[in-house]
Amino acid sequence: MRADAVSRAVLEQLRELHCLEPEQTVCCALSGGADSVCLLRCLLELRPVLGITITAVHVNHHLRGAESERDRTFCQQLCAGLGVRLAVYDVNPAARAAQEHCSEELAARECRYAAFAQVQADWIATAHTASDNLETAVHRLVRGASLHGLTAIPPKNGRFLRPLLRVTRRQVEQYLESLGQTYVTDSTNLTDAYTRNRIRHQVIPALEQLNPSVERTVSYTLRSLRREDDFLHQQAQAAYAKCHTGKNTLSGLETLHEALQFRCIAMLLEEAGISCEAPLLERLAALARQGGRWNLSGAVYAVGKSGTLTIETVQLPEPLPEAIPLQMGENRLFSGFVLHARLETVSPAENVANIHKKFANACLDYDKIKGEIFLRPRQSGDRMQLSGRGFTSALKKLIQANLPPERRRTAHVLADADGVIFAEGVGCAARVCPDGETRRLLVLEILGKC
Amino acid sequence: MRADAVSRAVLEQLRELHCLEPEQTVCCALSGGADSVCLLRCLLELRPVLGITITAVHVNHHLRGAESERDRTFCQQLCAGLGVRLAVYDVNPAARAAQEHCSEELAARECRYAAFAQVQADWIATAHTASDNLETAVHRLVRGASLHGLTAIPPKNGRFLRPLLRVTRRQVEQYLESLGQTYVTDSTNLTDAYTRNRIRHQVIPALEQLNPSVERTVSYTLRSLRREDDFLHQQAQAAYAKCHTGKNTLSGLETLHEALQFRCIAMLLEEAGISCEAPLLERLAALARQGGRWNLSGAVYAVGKSGTLTIETVQLPEPLPEAIPLQMGENRLFSGFVLHARLETVSPAENVANIHKKFANACLDYDKIKGEIFLRPRQSGDRMQLSGRGFTSALKKLIQANLPPERRRTAHVLADADGVIFAEGVGCAARVCPDGETRRLLVLEILGKC
Repeated sequence: MRADAVSRAVLEQLRELHCLEPEQTVCCALSGGADSVCLLRCLLELRPVLGITITAVHVNHHLRGAESERDRTFCQQLCAGLGVRLAVYDVNPAARAAQEHCSEELAARECRYAAFAQVQADWIATAHTASDNLETAVHRLVRGASLHGLTAIPPKNGRFLRPLLRVTRRQVEQYLESLGQTYVTDSTNLTDAYTRNRIRHQVIPALEQLNPSVERTVSYTLRSLRREDDFLHQQAQAAYAKCHTGKNTLSGLETLHEALQFRCIAMLLEEAGISCEAPLLERLAALARQGGRWNLSGAVYAVGKSGTLTIETVQLPEPLPEAIPLQMGENRLFSGFVLHARLETVSPAENVANIHKKFANACLDYDKIKGEIFLRPRQSGDRMQLSGRGFTSALKKLIQANLPPERRRTAHVLADADGVIFAEGVGCAARVCPDGETRRLLVLEILGKC
Repeated sequence: MRADAVSRAVLEQLRELHCLEPEQTVCCALSGGADSVCLLRCLLELRPVLGITITAVHVNHHLRGAESERDRTFCQQLCAGLGVRLAVYDVNPAARAAQEHCSEELAARECRYAAFAQVQADWIATAHTASDNLETAVHRLVRGASLHGLTAIPPKNGRFLRPLLRVTRRQVEQYLESLGQTYVTDSTNLTDAYTRNRIRHQVIPALEQLNPSVERTVSYTLRSLRREDDFLHQQAQAAYAKCHTGKNTLSGLETLHEALQFRCIAMLLEEAGISCEAPLLERLAALARQGGRWNLSGAVYAVGKSGTLTIETVQLPEPLPEAIPLQMGENRLFSGFVLHARLETVSPAENVANIHKKFANACLDYDKIKGEIFLRPRQSGDRMQLSGRGFTSALKKLIQANLPPERRRTAHVLADADGVIFAEGVGCAARVCPDGETRRLLVLEILGKC
């Protein structure tokens, strides 16, 4: 009775996808574990009803030594016994992980899907269950997700089908038991070991105590979310087509429902290759409404104004040069400006306040400067003490606090033998500030682009 | 710094709701617990910015003896100290629970909201936090929920506001600590004790190990779901207005996106007062597509045909009569039909197969019947053994298997001194079946409505 429920659920799932046609070939991705063995047996059971051809593919990851060989042999014997044609692919995720500097899990997944890509079949069926789906949904919820993310594992994605999505892990085991069908058990858990296992062993059991059929219950919820997400996606695409009035620009956002505004902004960010998180979306939606600028990363800004949102990239500066000695007169700055340096003599009667009024730009006490003055970019370890403060600060922090992101990398610094005496946007170090004793002023002016 | 984050989050939440206007009165629902004390202090902190008047209301449930009095006194002293006008309402949920045969939790909630209804204020602020919101979302997910259900606690609902929805329980405690503000602790947990506590003490800590800021993360997700649910609701309302072509009827469902079909069907069920669960929705959507009938409850059916779905109520039958002796000739049935009973003599040459061919209706061996024959409704405890089976079955089950729901209650039964010999829709008992020895047949025919 229970076993029957499994093939019925698989049949229902396949029928609702409206994609399988008679005489097509479905290739079952077979690891040898309970889920994939159940899927294979179930597809074979349904073969007469669906009129399809079943094949199988086993990917040997060679990550678990003798156990990997055991799994391959098991799959070969199982398929031989069932009269199913099996393709075996050998992959090397360990090498790929080393080469691409990624985790073995990720490399294994990539290798597996690369192998699947070579399979000659109309469809490839993978054995994701309702239990996997619940775990994925909880995982996404915990990390923060959009409606789309919460819909978890899609029953159909390209030519991949997941016919077991309405079947729980327990049902899988009952089905195999009713058939007297054995399977292998993976001694490790390749995917997302830590998080996935925590969810499986701690969160899900707690949820099952609240509702023993939580997997089935949630699978209904996920189906409903998938339908609604699909509708929203259609609506958002139509809205995007209207609002996307130029490269990196959305106009007329204020005429859309907020839900569509957010989806359109997410699509704009995706197009620009910017990762799109919930707090950022909220900020950009507010930006489009209220106007303003927001730095997205490096030289990239979002600019909002009365329902229009644009992603702008500020011109990137030239490569940074080495330090050059400051010369009186014009110094070409690598950000395309010109720094004009000159010496002024101050009469003893003038006080500091007046000096600052007179020279709107930076003024340093020339006689307090030690040795030669260099013009250079900020270096790591630069510190300076500002006037009126009893401590030195990391220059990096001062620049972050005073300069917009796109100018931080190319911020100019003047340094003498003892270190930084002046930094663009920040001002001059306390030790070279003019005072009542100052006689010679080094006046710095930044002139427009050269 | 942390404390500041709390009032900033409250201000943001209130501003985004666009509902508070200067000089309005906000009444803070004050239990004396950490959350509500935080809310009151925070609203007072923001009073100058918002230009509002703050009052408070305390509802004394009298469910925890001296502790209830302690809480009331605490609230009175707190408000007196802060210069806030406090209204105290005494309610009696214990009596209400007894009177309405419901749980004390539910009665307490009803009493509380009845008290709130008497409050003279533009808005009533309750202290639901991001932590409550996460717990509610998990609770709904586990029980099975629509997108709307998953959005959990709304930040605004009628004149109720939840300004703390972006603040976590931990932030509440830090805020109060930074103010040196005390609060009372409830020794019981009135709401959903079992489920809520399990979620709070087992599920949430496990989620927090995966993501320490899961409450804040999920609060972004819930906000996003709320926006999308709101859009879908608007679209579904517009679709419903078009499709709702008559009382209890939706037409043209096939022209709608599936997401809207489901929402419209849910609205139809709600209008008909039928509780609407995910499996039922899936079934009714399929019914509208493929055609067919589905019993919703008792005499209520859903009927689908080429994109039209109707909820129909079948005419309820007359009250059931007592048993009446069967008479040869016409017997008026309480379901409005007529049962015609007659005796036939069978020649010894005729075999059973022929008997059944000859009399299309039910035929019983009259000589096997014990004592007087009564016509009556099914009674609890009725059993019968059908021909060809070695066991008796509950008549109730046989009727359920053979009759449509609206006819089950009024199914007719013939009984002799030893019990049921014939049941409508089911057939005759094995012990009165005609056989090769049969000489007198009792032939039963049901004639059209009288």
